[in-house]
This record gives sequence, C-alpha cells and structure tokens, in this order.
Amino acid sequence: MAFTDLQAKARRHLWPHYTEMSRVEDGSLPVIVRGDGCTVEDAHGRRFLDGLAGLFCVQIGYSHGAEIGRAAAAQLEELPYYPNWSYAHPRAIELAAEVADLAPEGLERVFFVSGGADAVETAWKLACQYHQERGERRWKVVSRHMAWHGTSLGALSINGVPGARLPFEPLVPGAVRTRNTARFRRPAEETDAQFCAFLLDDLEQAILREGPSSIAMVIMEPVQNVGGALTAPAGYFEGVRAICDRYGILLCADEVITGFGRMGEWFASTRYGIRPDLITCAKGLSSGYAPIGAVIASEEMAAPFLERGSMFLHGLTFGAHPVSAAIALKNLEIMRRERIVEHVAENQGAFEATLRQLLSLPIVGDIRGGGFFYTIELVSDPDTRETFDAEQSRRILHDFVSPRIFDSGLICRTDDRASPLLQLSPPLIAGQAEFDRITAILGDALTEAGKLLP
Amino acid sequence: MAFTDLQAKARRHLWPHYTEMSRVEDGSLPVIVRGDGCTVEDAHGRRFLDGLAGLFCVQIGYSHGAEIGRAAAAQLEELPYYPNWSYAHPRAIELAAEVADLAPEGLERVFFVSGGADAVETAWKLACQYHQERGERRWKVVSRHMAWHGTSLGALSINGVPGARLPFEPLVPGAVRTRNTARFRRPAEETDAQFCAFLLDDLEQAILREGPSSIAMVIMEPVQNVGGALTAPAGYFEGVRAICDRYGILLCADEVITGFGRMGEWFASTRYGIRPDLITCAKGLSSGYAPIGAVIASEEMAAPFLERGSMFLHGLTFGAHPVSAAIALKNLEIMRRERIVEHVAENQGAFEATLRQLLSLPIVGDIRGGGFFYTIELVSDPDTRETFDAEQSRRILHDFVSPRIFDSGLICRTDDRASPLLQLSPPLIAGQAEFDRITAILGDALTEAGKLLP
Repeated sequence: MAFTDLQAKARRHLWPHYTEMSRVEDGSLPVIVRGDGCTVEDAHGRRFLDGLAGLFCVQIGYSHGAEIGRAAAAQLEELPYYPNWSYAHPRAIELAAEVADLAPEGLERVFFVSGGADAVETAWKLACQYHQERGERRWKVVSRHMAWHGTSLGALSINGVPGARLPFEPLVPGAVRTRNTARFRRPAEETDAQFCAFLLDDLEQAILREGPSSIAMVIMEPVQNVGGALTAPAGYFEGVRAICDRYGILLCADEVITGFGRMGEWFASTRYGIRPDLITCAKGLSSGYAPIGAVIASEEMAAPFLERGSMFLHGLTFGAHPVSAAIALKNLEIMRRERIVEHVAENQGAFEATLRQLLSLPIVGDIRGGGFFYTIELVSDPDTRETFDAEQSRRILHDFVSPRIFDSGLICRTDDRASPLLQLSPPLIAGQAEFDRITAILGDALTEAGKLLP
Repeated sequence: MAFTDLQAKARRHLWPHYTEMSRVEDGSLPVIVRGDGCTVEDAHGRRFLDGLAGLFCVQIGYSHGAEIGRAAAAQLEELPYYPNWSYAHPRAIELAAEVADLAPEGLERVFFVSGGADAVETAWKLACQYHQERGERRWKVVSRHMAWHGTSLGALSINGVPGARLPFEPLVPGAVRTRNTARFRRPAEETDAQFCAFLLDDLEQAILREGPSSIAMVIMEPVQNVGGALTAPAGYFEGVRAICDRYGILLCADEVITGFGRMGEWFASTRYGIRPDLITCAKGLSSGYAPIGAVIASEEMAAPFLERGSMFLHGLTFGAHPVSAAIALKNLEIMRRERIVEHVAENQGAFEATLRQLLSLPIVGDIRGGGFFYTIELVSDPDTRETFDAEQSRRILHDFVSPRIFDSGLICRTDDRASPLLQLSPPLIAGQAEFDRITAILGDALTEAGKLLP
C-alpha cells in the first residue's frame, strides 16, 4: 500500500497506544516498515538504530524473522490454535519445560498468558488464591513508587506511576506502595548499608501499617525501569526476602523487562540473588516476535493446587497460544545457539564504559543500570543535581533533545513522563559499533542541549 | 517429542487454565496435536469434531494454516515486531481500516490489544477518560448477571459470574449488575413486550440507585454466553440505547464471541439493531490463529482525543502486534473470499432445525441461540423445568454426559459451572454433516442420560 494511502487510513482508523492522536492526524507518527539487526527503517526510508529494542523486548534483533517464520508457519499448519483451558498441546508443554529449565532453581510451574500486564494480573490472582487454599485471606500487594507493572486495571492498581493510575481510580483496593531504590539524590554521606536499612525499614513499616496478615505478595522489578534503571543496594533483596518470610508474604520478581538476558543472566533474579516465589515475564520470552507472557511459580506455590478438585480460577482464550509458543521456543533456541545472554554478560562492561564518556558533559548527572539496560539522568545543575523544571523539560527535552536524537537516527526513550531520563535498552546483539554510535549521537545532542541551559 | 515425554514434562511444568491440576498429574488432560476442517486430533490419534471452535474462535476451521502461515512468515521476515506505542506500522493500519470497514456504521477508530479481556479493560478505561475529557467524572460500569467479560482483574470486576469473582474480591469498585435475558423460567404467560419492559425497568432502576451521573458505560454481549446463548426479547437493545442516551452513558457491545460472523453477520450488533459506542472483540478477528483483540470506537468517542495534547492513557507492548495483525488480515481475507459469514446466515436455520430434533427427549428443556451458537438446556423434569441438583449434576452431567460425549468424538462445553447447559459453537465452516453428527452424538448421550433420571 502506498504511504499516502497508509497515512490516510491511519488518520481515519488507527488509535495508537499512549500517543497524542493529533500526531496521527498531522502525519508525524513514524511508520516503521522493516528491520534488520539492531536497525529499523521507516516508510520514508530513514534508518534508525533501535536503542530501545522495540519496547525492551527484541533481544535477538530484527534479522531472525526468516527462521522464526518457518517455525511459525509449521505450527500454523500443524495446529493453528487450541486452548490451554482444559486441554494441552505439545508447544505449550515444551515451552513450559524450557522456561522452567532457564528459570532460577525451584521455579518449576509455568502459566502462560499473552503479555506482561496479563502476567502481573495472574500473579496477583495466584497469590490470593494460594493463601486461600491454605486457609488465609490475604489480598493486598506491595509495590514500589514509580514501578511500572502494566496498564490493565489490576496491573494498573499496583503500578507505581500516579499519572498512569489517577484518571482511572478508584482501582482494586489493597495496593500498598513503598519506596524505590532511587539513590541519585540521597545524602552523599549515606552508605550502601544505611540506604539499604532505610529502604527495608520503609517496606516493613508499610507492611506493619497495613497489617501483615492482609498482604498477599510483594512485587518488585529486579531493576526498576521507570525512574531510570534503578538497581538496589547490596543486601536489599536478601532483606526483602527476609521480611516476606517473616510475615508469610509471597515475593514476585517482575522480570517483564529484565527476563531473558537483558541483565546478562537468563533471569535477573539470579544475578541479584533474589529468591522469588513467582516470576512474571513476557517481552524477551519471544523477543517480541509474538505476544506471549508467563508466570513462573515455585513448586511450593503449586502444592495446594495439586490436591484433587482444586484449580486456579483463572484463564485466557489465548493463554499458551500454540503459534506464540512455537515462536518463543525458536527464539530461546536462537538465544542459546547464538550465546546471546553470554554476549550481554561479556559486553555490558564495554557498553557502560562507552556510555560513561558522557559523564564529562555537565548536563549528564548520572549513568546507571547494568546489562544492556541503562539510564542517563540529565541535570540542570551538576553541583546541586537539580532536575529540569517544566519549562526546561519542554524547551530542552521535548523540543530539542528528543527530535535531535531521532533525526540523528537513534531511537531511545527520551522524555518519559517529562523526566530528563534517557533510557537505553538495545537489542542484546548490539556490540561496540552500536555502543559507539549511541554514545556519539547522545553526546552530540547533549552537548548542544547543555548550551540551552542558563 | 514422544507422548510419554510430553506427559512427563506437562506433569512437572505446565500449569493449564481453569483446569484441575490433578488432571495433569494423572495424565487425563487431553493433548491436542493437530487439526483440519472442523476436526482436532489428540496425541492418541483420537479425532474429535470440535463443537466449540477451540474456545468460540476458530471461525475458518483448522485447515487454513498453510496460507496463513505464509502471511505470518512474510511478516516475520519483513518486520517481526514494533510497538504501536508512539509508532505505527503498515499491518496495524491496514487491519484498523479493514475492521472499521466491517464494523457497524459510525464505528471507525480501532485500538488493538492482545485478547478479549484486554479489550474489555481498554473499553472501561476509554469510557472513563472520555467522560473526563468532557469534564465529567464517571467510573462505574453496568453489566449483566452471569455475563462473562474476562478474568484480568478489571474485566473480572464487571464479570457477572460470582464464582469467578468472589475469591478475588475486593475488585475495582463501581461494578453494577442488572438482570440478564434468561427467559426459560419466566412465567409462561409473560409476553415479549412485558419481559422487555421488566428488563429495561431493572436496568434503569439499577442506574438510578447508583446515580446516573456516576455511570461511565453499560456493557452487554449481544447474545450472552454464560447462562446459555441468551438472546434478548424484541425491543430490548433499542430500550437499552434509549436509557443510555437519557443518562449520558456509553454503550459497549462485548462481541468477543459474537464478532466476526458467529451470528451470521460480521457483528451481531448489526443483526440485533444495537447501536453501540464501543465494540470489544477478539477471538474471531484472527480465527484464534494469533492472539489479538480490539476496541472499535465511534467517531464521537474519539473526538475529545483529537485535540492537540490529548492522549488516551493506555498501552500494551504487544498491542497491534505486526504478526498478529498480518494473521488477522489474512483471516479476514479468507472469511470474505470463502463467504464464511454468508454461510452462517444461510445455514443457521438448518443447524437449529437439526438440533431441535433433540427437543423430543424429555431431558432437553430448551434449545436457544442463533447463528452457529446454541445452548441445549437440560431439565430433570420437563413439566416443571426443574434444573439439576448438585447430585444430578455430578452423577449425570459430570460423570456420564461429559465423558460419553467426549468419548463419542465430540468436543463441546458440557458442564459449565455445573449448570446443565450444553454449549455449541462450531467452526463457521460446519455444514449439515457436522450438524447431523453433533445431533446424533448428543441424542445418544442424552437418551442414555434420561434413563439415569428418577
């Protein structure tokens, strides 16, 4: 279809996600038409280095479509659909076994859904019913301020971003929030151990205020995305686990972004010594090549449901979809064969070191993260670490930095909710050439941006 | 993989949906391995006429995998993934235009998600924000008793089935329920007009009790699935529309099951003269060949969002997935080419007439529905229309009818929540041979079942 026809149809009919509809109307919404390696191309033939891996998901890059296409086509011919609701099919079983094999020890049972928010919804329901099956009524969930857990109404209820939630409140009661691990503006003299103790006390106090016996689970991303690749201080996740154990609360690691290699391990829970009862995952499971997500549960979580007559009261038509499962299986085969996770482990240091060249720019306040997942936090004043005010966000970030980076051929997240955080999460096949190009484009844009500060 | 290996892996790792896990443990969960036409085959080589179209979704049957596989493979090679979040891609645009073309007049804007529950979540959020953009705060939703709208926590909140909801309450506040159109046990002398007036009064009273200005939308399936293919009396949907208009409430037709041909029109809203502001759909959009769903909104719903700076605050990583969109486009092309919807319109009378032969059995109390979507309601006493008690449900329905039908080679829903309702929703390519076979198998099982009644 010709581009002008596409534009006309988009203008009349397509309602995109989290997008000003006026950008469809005025034709400024980029139309991406193809991809290869770490690159995507728009309808005008402009090529972009994809520094966001689609949306934190295209682990293997864009060039494996032919091989995965053969797996999808074979599955479509063999069995294009069957529910995982009262039935099973081979790809669901094989993928469950494969995911359990990759998951941290003790996490053995896999419930498939269609995406990350679905996985969070499922984890919450599973936690509630798990406690009920054991004779306890627990329904609340603790999450962290600004942590993104999805936008369906259950997931949104525990989503930590007020701006995403408030237009739709009241939501599911029982969402409790605690501090996140943002440290950039904590007192300079605070040690790791002090910061950790402060966070754990905040979590425990939140639990005590609610009544520990009402809390079903704590959900945390191993590295929190919103707020900017927030890692935790040493001892934090051990402390969280201890608090959960103290009060009989389940711990869910939301690995929708960090799962399947982004932090240089198959699951970041392994890297950070988190010992979750549940893992939610999606995105990287299929490298985004098909909609699929999962909850991976410990054997102990499954135990009450193994009794005759017991069942988890949850289900989706497209759960464990055979074509999505076939695509995910092939993706995991490619990731193993091409040593994608090892590649991240081996190259994360080079990626970080390359990015850290940008710290010489006064506008760059902090660079943090790990694996292939980093955030660059901008400041209006390097000494005070002052963030941008609304006027600076509009004038510098929205009107200058974002278009400059995009026009230079790099896609990354540049103005997430008007915070001056540049988020990088490239395909896991990126190497030094991509690190250099990302850094060069950002360096150029941020050098110019610095001149716009007073 | 050998079947015994599959079984061993399933036992250790697969957590199926709405299924007693003990059925995985004891190996009794059927493993479906392939399909063709209206037939699926399990790992033991047993073949079944699929009277449920997977899960109310495989409109085109199981034999179009090769053609759809070519479309999927081509898309995977061209662009395996890109978000619809700040970007567009050709298949999303083309599918939006195609869906808008098929939708009832005036419904022009399409927001894609990954399934039916997602669509319901989206519709609720869209309704809330639509009112806010116009300066009104409305957050409640009216749905009907026993109506299934999905199992994610938002969708579950308005789900009308208490047993699905209660273990997870408290849910999103503001769900209001009204009567459904079940008529089988209404007074024999009640006319259509009287029944309709009774239902509309119940709806309006529910709205008045809540405060009309707090209600964002009313959501109704054109034919309600749970409760057994419940159609509405003449005048009902006109009356619902009038009540919605009177109080400024949006009307959402949940066409997750009825959309894309099941009732002999592309959308059942057309057949029943419903004039919704929103349609939720999924399943048949791809014939189940890929996870995808959509909300189709009227031009008026979109209007407040067209203002510069306004956006609908909702998004999913896998919304408008390019591979799912390519599969849905090919499915709709096949449905048009093979005149699938016309086939349903032309053959629904024969299907119903064939099923109605079963009315001669005393255990069959009612046969109702339309299109390729019927329910047979069993009774323990044909004169009083008494339903089964718990003991009869277990002994006759669960222990005899369900296995007898399955062992005879027919898949249909036989004991939905212990109600004696046999639900039929075959692929839309079924013809007289399938109608005859379904009726013969049911006739045999129900004749024998009748002998088990006192």
